[in-house]
Amino acid sequence: MSARKQKLINEPDDIVDEMLAGFCAAYRDIVRLEGERLVLRAEPKAPGKVGLVMGGGSGHEPAMLGWVGEGLLDVNVVGEVFSAPGPAPILQGIRAADRGAGVLLCVSHHEGDRLNAELALEFCEMEGTENVDMVILYDDISSAPKGSESERRGTAGLFFVWKMLGAYCEGEVDLASAKALAEKVRDNTRSLAMSLSSCASPASGEVMFEMAEGEMEIGMGLHGEVGRGRQKALPADETIDLMLPPILDDLPFQAGDEALVLLNNSGSLTLMELFILHRRVEEKLREADVSVYKSWIGAYATTLEAAGFAISLCRVDDQLKALWDAPANGAYMKQL
Amino acid sequence: MSARKQKLINEPDDIVDEMLAGFCAAYRDIVRLEGERLVLRAEPKAPGKVGLVMGGGSGHEPAMLGWVGEGLLDVNVVGEVFSAPGPAPILQGIRAADRGAGVLLCVSHHEGDRLNAELALEFCEMEGTENVDMVILYDDISSAPKGSESERRGTAGLFFVWKMLGAYCEGEVDLASAKALAEKVRDNTRSLAMSLSSCASPASGEVMFEMAEGEMEIGMGLHGEVGRGRQKALPADETIDLMLPPILDDLPFQAGDEALVLLNNSGSLTLMELFILHRRVEEKLREADVSVYKSWIGAYATTLEAAGFAISLCRVDDQLKALWDAPANGAYMKQL
Repeated sequence: MSARKQKLINEPDDIVDEMLAGFCAAYRDIVRLEGERLVLRAEPKAPGKVGLVMGGGSGHEPAMLGWVGEGLLDVNVVGEVFSAPGPAPILQGIRAADRGAGVLLCVSHHEGDRLNAELALEFCEMEGTENVDMVILYDDISSAPKGSESERRGTAGLFFVWKMLGAYCEGEVDLASAKALAEKVRDNTRSLAMSLSSCASPASGEVMFEMAEGEMEIGMGLHGEVGRGRQKALPADETIDLMLPPILDDLPFQAGDEALVLLNNSGSLTLMELFILHRRVEEKLREADVSVYKSWIGAYATTLEAAGFAISLCRVDDQLKALWDAPANGAYMKQL
Repeated sequence: MSARKQKLINEPDDIVDEMLAGFCAAYRDIVRLEGERLVLRAEPKAPGKVGLVMGGGSGHEPAMLGWVGEGLLDVNVVGEVFSAPGPAPILQGIRAADRGAGVLLCVSHHEGDRLNAELALEFCEMEGTENVDMVILYDDISSAPKGSESERRGTAGLFFVWKMLGAYCEGEVDLASAKALAEKVRDNTRSLAMSLSSCASPASGEVMFEMAEGEMEIGMGLHGEVGRGRQKALPADETIDLMLPPILDDLPFQAGDEALVLLNNSGSLTLMELFILHRRVEEKLREADVSVYKSWIGAYATTLEAAGFAISLCRVDDQLKALWDAPANGAYMKQL
């Protein structure tokens, strides 16, 4: 199935800056733009808050710029399409987020993101900026086997980390406990994605990969990284029946557990399809005696206009449920 | 450009019921499912509220089921894909919304929706149900010329009516003033859509229409109704420069006016593209000395997975701004 090559853009070189101008103008009560592609909270928190910084490539909107705001992130450092920002802008982001209580740099695990984050932290050390740490986040069970969790990629399930870590850092906490909380959410989260079609890069015009009509692939990454190979596309229920058991087995989720559910739209799947898929996820979780605390269904971390979705589950206890329910006000994540 | 025919569904006949089951399970703190495909507020308001009912076909999700909730609609009566519900379920919806202060049936102007709504109102009269009225809503400037506004179609711009009418009816108001408010918002709203690609019906598998790569059409309706003919696709800024002037001229919006902006994603456009487009909308409005009070950018009333968008503008005064800013808690429309 051919990806849409025609894009509503101007000059490919201007995509990221024009995107940021349009986004920040629309949500100027929530965010503001500063320096080298930094999206900051419009009104920074009073001193004493652990700052949360997230760098990442573009092309996943509303991630991550839509997650900057009250109860969420302090700073998003925006890179080119599917490409991590360099250490210099990350360093700017760390400085902008510093409210005197330390800064946690959150890294969605991909090689480029990790390397640039490490370099930024070395810069911090060189210039004597203290109390900065980083946490590597991952959730995608298809990208490395059980037992090698730390080699896995970060995908849509980081949704849970942003929400709960964001809420946690609104309180009086220190950097070490913020990092521990991020790791706790990460270690209770598992995701698996599938795709029916690819996307075309707005920068190069190139299709990421071709898929035939009637095919699907399970296990793709957030940039179309290869999964478990092509197979015949299945109906909705059979797709869930294939994808959910490996997610449950991996943690493993057990009878009596309580979980949050995210069905993340990669781009051009319809909500109609996602609701139908969610129906089956709830049915199968009920069979496994895993109760659903809350569900979210929508496009939170996209792969441009790819047609596919990911299931993410996060096992929650009372602490995480309270953090989940805490208020949030990002442009694309609101909780009352 | 070929639409995606492969859908993540089960049996085509089960689409709407499975979608509703999955949606209402996910957002059970906000909505509940009742009777013949009625989506109701999970906790109905205390007696004395004017009830707001909206019927409509499926395929536009999150419209309208995502707009049921506090500060928004009371009941959505859900039809088949792109097809209005019949008078019997609409009548059920009116009864379910009746809290003793009258019910306003909101109709997005399409022939099927209007006819079924009129029949439902005749049923009400026959059975002696009083204090029910209907308001016909439209916003699409491409579907009938200026001077024939009441022949126009309802499209994405009704977004503004739901939000402000919903907020208005949380207060102590009567049916006549609720209808007058809906008409006020409608009469200050204008929309125009464009599309780069079509969608395929999940029920029939048929593509609505074919578009060649590199073509676009301006003025399409929410079900792919024909617009102003095909033309060569333009870059983002030129597209806005072509679409915005007729919207401004139609009301007309004048220097010194204040407006709300909606950029509605028909389905598979990326947020990246929408932000770039929004940047130009803000620039051109500034040139016209129309100030933007708030903007919303996202998929609020879709045409399945079509790639396109609509610009909607709503001229606001102090009353409408306050209603816009009032809290709302639907599954897909949250205002803190």
